[in-house]
Amino acid sequence: MANTTASIITIGDELLIGQTIDTNSAWIAKQLNGIGVDIIKRVAVGDNREAITQALDRAIAEAGIVLITGGLGPTADDITKPLLCDYFNGKLIVNEEVLQHVKDIFARRNRPFLERNMKQAEVPDTCKVLFNPMGTAPGMMFEKNGSIIIAMPGVPFEMMAIMETAVMPMLKEQIVSDAIIHKTTITAGEGESFIAEKIQDIETALPAYIKLAYLPSLGLVKLRLTAKGADAVVLDAEVAQWQQRIVQRLHDIVVAMEDISFEQITGNLLKEKKATLCLAESCTGGYISHLITQVAGSSSYYKGGIVSYLIEIKENLLGVSEDSIVQNGAVSEVVANQMARGALQLLKADYSLSITGILDKEPVAGEIAEPGTVWMAVSDGQQTIAKKFRFFHDRQRNKESAATMGMLMLWKFINGKLTA
Amino acid sequence: MANTTASIITIGDELLIGQTIDTNSAWIAKQLNGIGVDIIKRVAVGDNREAITQALDRAIAEAGIVLITGGLGPTADDITKPLLCDYFNGKLIVNEEVLQHVKDIFARRNRPFLERNMKQAEVPDTCKVLFNPMGTAPGMMFEKNGSIIIAMPGVPFEMMAIMETAVMPMLKEQIVSDAIIHKTTITAGEGESFIAEKIQDIETALPAYIKLAYLPSLGLVKLRLTAKGADAVVLDAEVAQWQQRIVQRLHDIVVAMEDISFEQITGNLLKEKKATLCLAESCTGGYISHLITQVAGSSSYYKGGIVSYLIEIKENLLGVSEDSIVQNGAVSEVVANQMARGALQLLKADYSLSITGILDKEPVAGEIAEPGTVWMAVSDGQQTIAKKFRFFHDRQRNKESAATMGMLMLWKFINGKLTA
Repeated sequence: MANTTASIITIGDELLIGQTIDTNSAWIAKQLNGIGVDIIKRVAVGDNREAITQALDRAIAEAGIVLITGGLGPTADDITKPLLCDYFNGKLIVNEEVLQHVKDIFARRNRPFLERNMKQAEVPDTCKVLFNPMGTAPGMMFEKNGSIIIAMPGVPFEMMAIMETAVMPMLKEQIVSDAIIHKTTITAGEGESFIAEKIQDIETALPAYIKLAYLPSLGLVKLRLTAKGADAVVLDAEVAQWQQRIVQRLHDIVVAMEDISFEQITGNLLKEKKATLCLAESCTGGYISHLITQVAGSSSYYKGGIVSYLIEIKENLLGVSEDSIVQNGAVSEVVANQMARGALQLLKADYSLSITGILDKEPVAGEIAEPGTVWMAVSDGQQTIAKKFRFFHDRQRNKESAATMGMLMLWKFINGKLTA
Repeated sequence: MANTTASIITIGDELLIGQTIDTNSAWIAKQLNGIGVDIIKRVAVGDNREAITQALDRAIAEAGIVLITGGLGPTADDITKPLLCDYFNGKLIVNEEVLQHVKDIFARRNRPFLERNMKQAEVPDTCKVLFNPMGTAPGMMFEKNGSIIIAMPGVPFEMMAIMETAVMPMLKEQIVSDAIIHKTTITAGEGESFIAEKIQDIETALPAYIKLAYLPSLGLVKLRLTAKGADAVVLDAEVAQWQQRIVQRLHDIVVAMEDISFEQITGNLLKEKKATLCLAESCTGGYISHLITQVAGSSSYYKGGIVSYLIEIKENLLGVSEDSIVQNGAVSEVVANQMARGALQLLKADYSLSITGILDKEPVAGEIAEPGTVWMAVSDGQQTIAKKFRFFHDRQRNKESAATMGMLMLWKFINGKLTA
């Protein structure tokens, strides 16, 4: 296949009214990028014949591969299948293999097989069926004007299963493409303009086929080098050299040399130090614990945590003294310190991180600290250091910010870079 | 303004290689929909002049309002601002108010103000500046062929701040539009085809201006009625009547009559019952606790939780007996029951939910249960009921499924619908 560009069309009113966040596109893009396919555009349209047809016309004109998700279900609002059938001049026929699969699914779930479900097994006779191991709606592949068009259901795990078992193996066989290499460096503690200034000469010296992108988020900036070229091995080595130059220049703020999450960075560090961690979370309500355990293998360094959402739990379980809370409030340096030490004793880990704060914008009755105030402490039993933070957004965003800042604080502490 | 349709363009290579999930579009769509603006399309393009220009041409031809996010930063990969300046025939000039604001931000953060940051204060002289209270890159508004075009930075909280303080107030004043009413009903435990069958006569009887959409996700199906019409009050009452008919028909599987999360459903139920909750989580690692505390005001019913990631924490803190673990494994009915009762004693709540399982696809050394097996138990001190689940996806998806199923199990238990 010569034209190895792709375009993604996602279909569904829920995407246009903000009811659903589109996670499918990013996942698909990552897969295709991994085999050297450039995504040139992503379009989301509603359950609307005219809009879908126009998006199809344009995508087929612009890209060699068109991936469509959504609108393949058994209910009346799912219009993608009949539309594709017309668009590719086919007629709907029952596919026996799919029919048996659908019947099996209903039998396994002890659900009656309805006339309506029969329709799930109908496909245009102009398509190649892509088997859906995870659900009833099959994927379909068409060809037109030298482009291939692949339609899949919008339910993420069904789409992923079809991609993994049918689409990717087929594309890998057909595509002879330039390699695309990405290398990401993660920095903490400086803004993107400061970094750009510091590495300006390196950025200017980059060859035209290597691009540098800055991706800032709270407290972190990711620097992504992207290159495209014929020889993957040579290209990889070359991009690695440029990344080395950047890392050497920014050595004091680099926290990772690959595109990983901060919970993975934390996990790698703990594994390297052969150390264990426990948590005492109040305002973040278990969110940091959730992030830490998102990493496969985290049971080798994470012991567990206490979510002390109410003050009584802080007192009864973590041994925070009532006096401290009365005198300083639950959101205070003293309480954060006691929580960190209490967790360490209770859960017997090498390090602990504690967090107590007010994430909402509204003041909390009986609490001295202002809204957005968060105290965090880290401890190794010998030394306990607390820091105060202020966050100015809504509950959810403040929670995310606090989690990142907490893990960064722990990272600095373990690396001997946190000063009291 | 006559044409109250909108189109969203998001800019950035990170969106096309799958490095970033676009959450901005859904948020923007929800805001606009709330004031009667229909989103007709969302397009994501890379940091590429030609692609951005083409997307702009098309969006301006198709929609009355065009919203653009991304590419406004101070580094070389941010090309949106000079491009918009050319596109709207302007030249870049320093905006004094923005300059002062940028300088203030750097002063407050004790960071040197660089020449490069001066550029942040430059705007095309053909735009109206939309002040960015949260960052250095200002929003910009242009007009062309009767459409208004609004460009904002891609960092979510900066975009949100500009939308809330500048864009929405302006649009609300200008737009005289039909009302859009959405009403969502959430059901649990039946598939969409079964539901469609049960309410087929109601769906057929719906007037043309009321649409019904089915949004299935694990264990749940959302039924969304959407209507558009001149009189918001009349329309709202009419859609409410149709929703009532659907709810009456499906009464035994309806869990909510608004588009809320399962953690909100759980919270509403606990508040209604004036009851408190605690958690003992093993494999979900704090995720359910995180979800429960996502709801503002959850401290009125949620006491806290134990994340017993390692077996020793189950034994030492939750009083799970070593014998039980040796005989049945940590993923077992006995252990789930002991965890639920242990949490209730330790955290002194009215209800507890416990969960122990293997979320990964790989077997765990020394564990009898198969990968994907999860045991959950709910208890009110009098009665403790455990259920076994099997999940077949990856760690992250299994975690989400387990959390939903756990909250559903608790919901049924409190409502007297869970049988041992």
